[in-house]
Amino acid sequence: MNQKAPRTAIQPTRAQDYAEWYQQVVRAADLAENSAVRGCMVIKPWGYAIWENIQRVLDRMFKDTGHKNAYFPLFIPKSFLEKEAEHVDGFAKECAVVTHHRLIAGPDGGLIPDPKAKLEEPLIVRPTSETIIGASFAQWVKSYRDLPLLINQWANVVRWELRTRLFLRTTEFLWQEGHTAHATEAEAREETLKMLDVYATFAEEYLAIPVIRGPKTQSERFPGAVDTYAIEAMMQDRKALQAGTSHFLGQKFAEASGIRFLDAAGVINLAWTTSWGVSTRLVGGLIMAHSDDDGLVLPPRIAPAHVVIWPVYRGDDTKHAISAVIDDAARSLRAVNFEDRRLEVEVDRRDNSGGDKNWEWIKKGVPLRIEVGPRDLASGTAMVSRRDLGAAGKESVPFAELPKRIPELLGLIQNNLLARALADRDANTRAIDERVDFDAFFTPKNKDKPEVHGGFALSHWCGAQTCEARIKDALKVTIRCIPTYGIAGAKAADRLVEVGKCIVCGEASERRVVFAKSY
Amino acid sequence: MNQKAPRTAIQPTRAQDYAEWYQQVVRAADLAENSAVRGCMVIKPWGYAIWENIQRVLDRMFKDTGHKNAYFPLFIPKSFLEKEAEHVDGFAKECAVVTHHRLIAGPDGGLIPDPKAKLEEPLIVRPTSETIIGASFAQWVKSYRDLPLLINQWANVVRWELRTRLFLRTTEFLWQEGHTAHATEAEAREETLKMLDVYATFAEEYLAIPVIRGPKTQSERFPGAVDTYAIEAMMQDRKALQAGTSHFLGQKFAEASGIRFLDAAGVINLAWTTSWGVSTRLVGGLIMAHSDDDGLVLPPRIAPAHVVIWPVYRGDDTKHAISAVIDDAARSLRAVNFEDRRLEVEVDRRDNSGGDKNWEWIKKGVPLRIEVGPRDLASGTAMVSRRDLGAAGKESVPFAELPKRIPELLGLIQNNLLARALADRDANTRAIDERVDFDAFFTPKNKDKPEVHGGFALSHWCGAQTCEARIKDALKVTIRCIPTYGIAGAKAADRLVEVGKCIVCGEASERRVVFAKSY
Repeated sequence: MNQKAPRTAIQPTRAQDYAEWYQQVVRAADLAENSAVRGCMVIKPWGYAIWENIQRVLDRMFKDTGHKNAYFPLFIPKSFLEKEAEHVDGFAKECAVVTHHRLIAGPDGGLIPDPKAKLEEPLIVRPTSETIIGASFAQWVKSYRDLPLLINQWANVVRWELRTRLFLRTTEFLWQEGHTAHATEAEAREETLKMLDVYATFAEEYLAIPVIRGPKTQSERFPGAVDTYAIEAMMQDRKALQAGTSHFLGQKFAEASGIRFLDAAGVINLAWTTSWGVSTRLVGGLIMAHSDDDGLVLPPRIAPAHVVIWPVYRGDDTKHAISAVIDDAARSLRAVNFEDRRLEVEVDRRDNSGGDKNWEWIKKGVPLRIEVGPRDLASGTAMVSRRDLGAAGKESVPFAELPKRIPELLGLIQNNLLARALADRDANTRAIDERVDFDAFFTPKNKDKPEVHGGFALSHWCGAQTCEARIKDALKVTIRCIPTYGIAGAKAADRLVEVGKCIVCGEASERRVVFAKSY
Repeated sequence: MNQKAPRTAIQPTRAQDYAEWYQQVVRAADLAENSAVRGCMVIKPWGYAIWENIQRVLDRMFKDTGHKNAYFPLFIPKSFLEKEAEHVDGFAKECAVVTHHRLIAGPDGGLIPDPKAKLEEPLIVRPTSETIIGASFAQWVKSYRDLPLLINQWANVVRWELRTRLFLRTTEFLWQEGHTAHATEAEAREETLKMLDVYATFAEEYLAIPVIRGPKTQSERFPGAVDTYAIEAMMQDRKALQAGTSHFLGQKFAEASGIRFLDAAGVINLAWTTSWGVSTRLVGGLIMAHSDDDGLVLPPRIAPAHVVIWPVYRGDDTKHAISAVIDDAARSLRAVNFEDRRLEVEVDRRDNSGGDKNWEWIKKGVPLRIEVGPRDLASGTAMVSRRDLGAAGKESVPFAELPKRIPELLGLIQNNLLARALADRDANTRAIDERVDFDAFFTPKNKDKPEVHGGFALSHWCGAQTCEARIKDALKVTIRCIPTYGIAGAKAADRLVEVGKCIVCGEASERRVVFAKSY
C-alpha cells in the first residue's frame, strides 16, 4: 500500500480522471486553448498542423473520387433555413444570429449596434450549408448533363453549444462539407456509401482508429436527412465518438431548394442529393484514441513531424562533430519518404536540457525521438526512441542505417497503434442478450468513477423508437449505428444478422445493433 | 465606317465598357457569382482552384520564412475592438454584429431572434484579427525566448461593403493574415518589409503582375498601423489595384492587448508587432491584368490546368486511334513538371462540338489547348494553341515532343504575360511636373468613357495631407504609394528621389510619388 504509482507526465492519469486527463494532454501538447469568446477555441500551431495533414489527405481522396472544391457564403438568410421543416427544427435552436451591420458610440461611450443599421432579414452564421448550397445548385443544374454535381467545401461553421470541450464540441469548428446532386436515387445512395467508405479508410489507415460503419437509427439522423450513416470509434474510456457522417437526403432538400433537371427524355425531375462531413472533432478523437499517461501519441501518417533529433553536448570538444552528425542525419532523412510524404524532421537545437526536450517531445507525441551524444558519436550510432512503446521502444541505430530504419519503425508504430486500438475495442465489445447483463455492463462499478463502464454492447433491437428512448432515458446509452459489417472481438457478435429478442421489450428482432455511451 | 470589329467572345469589349467586360469575363470563365446574400459571392470550382493554387504557393513561402499556421475565433467581442482607438474607428463602421444565439417561431410563424437569447455583449464577425490574436499573443509571450512569434491564419473575414464587385470587393472574402511579434523595432520593421517582398515576388513570378512596392501615405494607412506598405498593380483600364499590404504596427496593438515580455536583462518590455495580408481580391487582379476580349487569360504557374486536350472525330474509323493518342499524350504530359508543379492536364471527352469546346476553354483561360483529329493522327502531330497569342500562337508539335515542348511553351507564356503587363504599365506611367498636365492626364478624353484616363503619374508631393486631399477631391486621384524602387518606362521618373516642386502647392518636394485612380 506504500508503493507509489510511477509519476507520469500527465496528471491526472486516464484511470484517475479521464476528462481532466484529456484537457491536460491537449494543454501539454500545446494543441489548442479556450479563447475569450465563449465556446470558441484557438487552434495552436501544433494542433493546426495535425488538421492541415487531415485536410491534405482527405482533399486528395475527395479529388480522386471526382469532387471539386468551391466556396459558399458564411451567412444564410433566415428564410433559407425555413424552407426545410425538419432542418430548421434541428438548427434554429443553436445558431449565431446577425442582426446589425454597424456599431456606433452609445450613450456611455461604448459601442452599440446602430439601430439605423438593423438588417431587414436576420442572417444566420452557417451551422451547415445544405440550404445556401442548394440555392446555387438550383441555378447550376439545368439538364441531366449537369449531373452528377460533386462539390466539397472547407469552411468554418457555428453551432451555439452550451457545454463545450476543445476539439470535441466547440461553438465554432472547422470542417469540410461535401454536397452532391444526382439524377437517380441509386446513384445518390452509392455516393453516400462511397464517402462513408472514404472516411472509414481515412480513419483506419491514417488516424489508426478502427471504426464501425453503418446507418444511424431514425432518431439519430441529421435533421432533414432520409438516411444518415456514420463511422463510430471507441475511445479509451470506452465511449463512442461519432467521427464522420454521410447523409442520403433523398429529394427533400432538392424540393426545398428547387434543384430540378431535364432528363434525357425531356421530363423535368427533382435531383437526389447527399451531404457528408468531418470536422476538427477528428483531432479530439485522435487524441483520445492513442494518447497515454505521458501525453499525446500521434500516428506517423498524420503527425506534423515524424522524427525529432537533438544533440546532447557534454563539454565543447565533441560539440562540433555532434552538430555535423545531426545535420547529416536530418538531411538524409528528409530525402526519404514514409508512405506518401517526405519525412518531416524537427531538429531541436534550443539550449534546454536534454531531459526537458525529451519530455516536451514525448508530450507532443512525435513518433520517434533521436538523441545524439558523445557516446553515440564514438559508436557511430544514434539512440532512437519510439513514442508508442516506452522504455521497451529504444534501439541503437548506426547513422548510415537511419534512412532505412526510420521509415520501417514508423510503419511499425502506425500498425501497432491501429492494432492496439482494435484490441482495445474488441476487449470492450460484448454481445449481450439479457437486459440484466446489459444494465450491469453500462453501470459503473465504482461510484467515484461514474464514467467507467463496459464499452460497446451488441444487442438485439426490435426497431421501435420507444425501446431506443427507454434505454436512453434509463442509462444514457444510445444506438450508435446499425453495423454494416461484422465486428471482430465480440465472439458471437460477428453474426450480426440473426433472429433474436429485443434487449428492451423482448419482441422479435432481426439483428444486433451497437449500443454505447457517447460523446 | 462600314467595317465591323471582329466579333469577340466577350461582349462588351474592354474598350466598350471595362466594368461590364470584367463581369462578363468572370461569368464566361465560370469563376464566381453573386449569392442570395447581399455582397457575398459564391466562388465556383474554376475560381476556387485558382485560389487554391495561390494558397499553395504562398503557404509554402510563408513556411519557408519561418511562419506557422494557426486558427483563431471568427467572433471578436465588442470590447476587444474598443481597445485600439484608431482601429475601432476604421472597422466598427462596416461589420456584421451577432446579437442573439437562437431563433424561435414568431407571432406570424416565421423565425425571429429569441429575445431570451440576446447576448450580453455583442460579437463582431472578424473584419481582421489583430485584437483577437493579440489576446492570445499576450498569453503566449512571456520572455524574449518566446519571440519572434511568427503566425499566419487562412480565414474568411467580413466587412460590410455598400458597393461590391466579385473578387474585388465583397462583404465576405477569403484571405490570409500574418501576425507577428518581435523583441525589437528593427526586427519588426524587417519582418514587415520581408513579407512585402514575398508578396511582390509572388505577384511577379506567379501571377505575372508587375507591382510597385512602398509605404502608403499617412492618410491611406491601415487603421491603427504606424506604417502601411503595399504592392500596387496597374490594371488594363490604367487604374491601380492594391494587391497586398504589410503593416508595421509599432507597439500600439501590443499595448492594447498587453503583449509584454521579459528581456534578457530581466526588464519587462512591450513587444513590436506586424500584420500582413492578401485576399481573394488577387483573383480579381489576375483577371483584370491579363484577360482579353475573348475572356480569361491565366498565367501557367497559377492556372488550375496547364493544358486541355480534346479529340476531333470525323467518322468512326479513326476514333479509337485518336482516343489512344490522347490517352498517351495526357499520360506522358502528367509525368513532367512545369516549374514546381506536375503538369495539370484536362482531357475533354464530352460530345460537344470541337468549336464549342475551343471557345469554352479559351474563355476559361487555359494556357495551352491541344486538338487531335484525323489529320493530326496521320501526320503524327498535335495542333497546340497558345491562349496568350491568338491565331499567331498555333503550332504543330510531333506527339513524341509534347513532353518537352509543352513546358517550354508554358514558360514562354508566363514570361510573355509579365512582359506584356510591364510594357503596358510603362506605357501608361508618366513623370508629370506641371499641374495642367497632371489634370489633363487624369481627365477622360471622351465624356462617354469617364473611366479612361492616363494611368500612373509620378509627380512631386510636398508631404502635406492637405495637398493629398485636394487632389483626391478634385480628381478622385490618390497617392498609391511612395515607391521604394525606381519604376521603368517613366523616363526621368527613375530618379524618384530628387528636388522638385509639389504638384499641388508648388512647395519644395524631395521625391516623386505614384498618383493614380484606384479600385
